[in-house]
Amino acid sequence: MSHDDSTGFHASVDEHAAHIRELLSSISPADETVPLAAALGRVTVAEILSPVDLPLFRNSQMDGFAVHSGDLAALGDGHPVALPIVGEIAARPLEPAPLEPGTTVRIMTGAVVPEGADAVVPVEDTTTAGDLVTIARARAVGEYVRERGSDLTAGTPLLPAGLRLGSRHLAALAAAGIGSVTVRSRVRVAVITTGSELVGVGSVPTLGQVFDANSVAVQAAVDAAGAAVSFTARVTDDVTAMLEALHLAAAVSDVIVTSGGISMGDYEVVREALEPLGARVGHVRMQPGGPQATASIDGVPVLCFPGNPVSTQLSVEVFLSPLLREWAGLEAPPRTPRVLSGAVRSVPAKRQFLRGRLLPDGRVETVSGPGSHLVAGLAASDVLIDVPLDTIHLEEGSTVDTWTL
Amino acid sequence: MSHDDSTGFHASVDEHAAHIRELLSSISPADETVPLAAALGRVTVAEILSPVDLPLFRNSQMDGFAVHSGDLAALGDGHPVALPIVGEIAARPLEPAPLEPGTTVRIMTGAVVPEGADAVVPVEDTTTAGDLVTIARARAVGEYVRERGSDLTAGTPLLPAGLRLGSRHLAALAAAGIGSVTVRSRVRVAVITTGSELVGVGSVPTLGQVFDANSVAVQAAVDAAGAAVSFTARVTDDVTAMLEALHLAAAVSDVIVTSGGISMGDYEVVREALEPLGARVGHVRMQPGGPQATASIDGVPVLCFPGNPVSTQLSVEVFLSPLLREWAGLEAPPRTPRVLSGAVRSVPAKRQFLRGRLLPDGRVETVSGPGSHLVAGLAASDVLIDVPLDTIHLEEGSTVDTWTL
Repeated sequence: MSHDDSTGFHASVDEHAAHIRELLSSISPADETVPLAAALGRVTVAEILSPVDLPLFRNSQMDGFAVHSGDLAALGDGHPVALPIVGEIAARPLEPAPLEPGTTVRIMTGAVVPEGADAVVPVEDTTTAGDLVTIARARAVGEYVRERGSDLTAGTPLLPAGLRLGSRHLAALAAAGIGSVTVRSRVRVAVITTGSELVGVGSVPTLGQVFDANSVAVQAAVDAAGAAVSFTARVTDDVTAMLEALHLAAAVSDVIVTSGGISMGDYEVVREALEPLGARVGHVRMQPGGPQATASIDGVPVLCFPGNPVSTQLSVEVFLSPLLREWAGLEAPPRTPRVLSGAVRSVPAKRQFLRGRLLPDGRVETVSGPGSHLVAGLAASDVLIDVPLDTIHLEEGSTVDTWTL
Repeated sequence: MSHDDSTGFHASVDEHAAHIRELLSSISPADETVPLAAALGRVTVAEILSPVDLPLFRNSQMDGFAVHSGDLAALGDGHPVALPIVGEIAARPLEPAPLEPGTTVRIMTGAVVPEGADAVVPVEDTTTAGDLVTIARARAVGEYVRERGSDLTAGTPLLPAGLRLGSRHLAALAAAGIGSVTVRSRVRVAVITTGSELVGVGSVPTLGQVFDANSVAVQAAVDAAGAAVSFTARVTDDVTAMLEALHLAAAVSDVIVTSGGISMGDYEVVREALEPLGARVGHVRMQPGGPQATASIDGVPVLCFPGNPVSTQLSVEVFLSPLLREWAGLEAPPRTPRVLSGAVRSVPAKRQFLRGRLLPDGRVETVSGPGSHLVAGLAASDVLIDVPLDTIHLEEGSTVDTWTL
């Protein structure tokens, strides 16, 4: 158990984030075509042109009477005209007869405007007696008529590429008769947690065993970032089993996340499995989350995060989730400058992510301690307080960057 | 087809929103218990106490050596002490032997700290030669030891009631061995679209038919607001069929949404079906979305929205989604004051929701027109521009409220 702190790489948070971005730049999830009912929140891969005019046909904007506007053109105020009602057009599949000059038809909102008619008079502007309707004033050509293609014409862009689909976009696709849409596939992420001390919930732990919080945490974070969990395993400190899990994961995944097994102690199963394959193992100047490694197996990138549960969760939030959110078209959670409600100590030469809770007055206080095992403390926090590399003390009232969780 | 604009209620947007909030205040979806893997984004119904201490046992924060701190207490700087290494404790299920004074054991991060030991010396602060480890300076009691219960003690709150579960909360539950969680059930929403002119995507419309965009739009909006679609139907202008759909919907839903069929024209199937049951039909001073009704069938509230697709979508956004989001613990989309890039006209006596697009400089421009049929125009917009009731003209450079879509 010799230890040499100079082994492996030493990187800043930003350098390691850039390295991981580069490592993952080669992955390219295939496109997939999904029905509209499964497309909410997915991201279009190409511009989508409308196959039809919208509206599909010339129709009425109001319940009222379709008219030849010329029949009303001579009207002065206070000289109403009465027109015979010769029929009725409902919003139904039908081809109405052309409208003869000097006549009118009742028409419903959305119904086909008959040939010849060039305006609709809303029912509330009319009075009806028997088969005669009286109209009080002249109407402009096109008034209350929705022209075919006035929303969008066939062959023009309905939705752009790279759009995260909300309900209004799905509505527009449906309106154009488009029932499915080609979207970016979700990035497939394998989650492998390691450590002979881990047991799953449902087990009764004996002394020395802990419940595996990381598997749940990483899977949920992957899900929340719009990616898909493709494989999970919990592996003891057994290099053969670890390699087997990695190969199985690589077969079905775009990226593999491991937790634990990369520090300088013995029984570091991830390091032992991946160093012979060229893993890059080292230190990032951050706390928690300092020990970090990356590797590749069967052509699939592997992100090896440290195993303490807060370290794992912070590593995911800092290095993986931003990339997954980009792929999924999700906005990054805000990073907001806030005022500290009390003094804060940090450590030299490390960028520290303290856990913070928002106060009603908008300031932020630290919650729980800096330890990487304080999983309940992290759950009680609202934000991460980002203390810069070379800061070891911040006074009450200082402004800090906070990352919304 | 007589028309009396005084029929039914006349309400402001806020009055109708308050009426719908009151109408829906009686619904109370049952709780349900789900495994952690299905709990992301769900809302806790009760405070959750930890059944265990966290950490579960006293363990090491570092890879290093467990010691009696008293053995190092006499050390002055530059007077290192050498201790015999009598064993090793890995992070595994085991009960280590007590540590004799004057000896040390190798210990891994997370491993059980043996009885007697009260500090851990990190490996990087030591030098090892054979079975002797040399330690350079004294250590405080408890240094690098994680005490049992130091994160949280058994019986104290792990998570509060009413919390929307993120990955860090699920991690804390897992760490405490809790495998499932009781959450608010999703509100069950039935979606019934009406109109003899409607056809589903996949059909080839004949003249007078339009694709049903509302069913897709309302379902997606319900989903996005954290509720569940419990029933869907598309009904022609047939009162008997409508009533049948409403009864079927009521049997499986907490709230029913209908689109279309409530204005003053003929063939208003929703009005005809529900007015005999006491529906409240009238007008809200807004555009689009003016005709509005509410009702109740078999004890289930019914929200009757107008059928033009932009009217339907705006009604959902203004009257239903805010309530659904509250139930689901989702934050409301921001309403942001923005500067208009051009002049805007509105109509008297109506609060108008114009469609707006955000410009790179942060200002907002209107996109598409005010018409309630402009479904592609709505899809091209980023925000709704909320023009107050009594404003009919806004100059370029005016500040308006915008609703993020």
